[in-house]
Amino acid sequence: MSSIDDQRELPTFNSAGLAPAIAQDADTGEVLMMAWMNQEAWEETLQTRRVAYYSRSRKALWRKGEQSGHVQELVEARVDCDADTILLKVRQAGAACHEGFRSCFFRRVADDGKWEVCETRLKSPDEIYGH
Amino acid sequence: MSSIDDQRELPTFNSAGLAPAIAQDADTGEVLMMAWMNQEAWEETLQTRRVAYYSRSRKALWRKGEQSGHVQELVEARVDCDADTILLKVRQAGAACHEGFRSCFFRRVADDGKWEVCETRLKSPDEIYGH
Repeated sequence: MSSIDDQRELPTFNSAGLAPAIAQDADTGEVLMMAWMNQEAWEETLQTRRVAYYSRSRKALWRKGEQSGHVQELVEARVDCDADTILLKVRQAGAACHEGFRSCFFRRVADDGKWEVCETRLKSPDEIYGH
Repeated sequence: MSSIDDQRELPTFNSAGLAPAIAQDADTGEVLMMAWMNQEAWEETLQTRRVAYYSRSRKALWRKGEQSGHVQELVEARVDCDADTILLKVRQAGAACHEGFRSCFFRRVADDGKWEVCETRLKSPDEIYGH
């Protein structure tokens, strides 16, 4: 018996059961963050259209924005040529970064080789997590 | 004694000595590919302004476009909040993907959960590598 479920394709997860997932603002093209997905996060994200990752530090499903409200609505999911990297086009509520920046990539390498903040902070981390 | 070299900062490489690097078209914002960098690739890329990665399959420095001519000129390098993921804003010659697509992310997840090609192929792989 075949069903729609049987036809679904899965990314290739690595030996730890994970694949890197890049979140990109669907409207502006800004790269917001990179995190990891396991199969559960992948399936929940496609079903709910709200992005979930796998937290390697907490070893648990991480529903992005669950604490902060800074959720990511899925617009489109893509895979790369090897299907082992995921690209998520999302609508980001507020700041993607726990440091209060829109994107986690808020520092560029300056001419002297040091990091240099090149984006504007939207919120302080305290404001995000209500401390 | 201090020198400019002493002031350079490095990304945090994982236990294998690698950090994921996302290449993004500096002009259009298109995400082109994700690959891995070690410290050698990072330093060569910043020095030459031409992107080099570390090939995990060949276990060697991989100067992007060395065979195909599809080089990436570095416009800006960024790091994320943990400094363990790299974002490279690049000018891409030709196709970033060895399959002949501009971006490796040429397939999206369709409504039935299967992959669906959603970009136009620029070249056949045979054309790229001259077979």
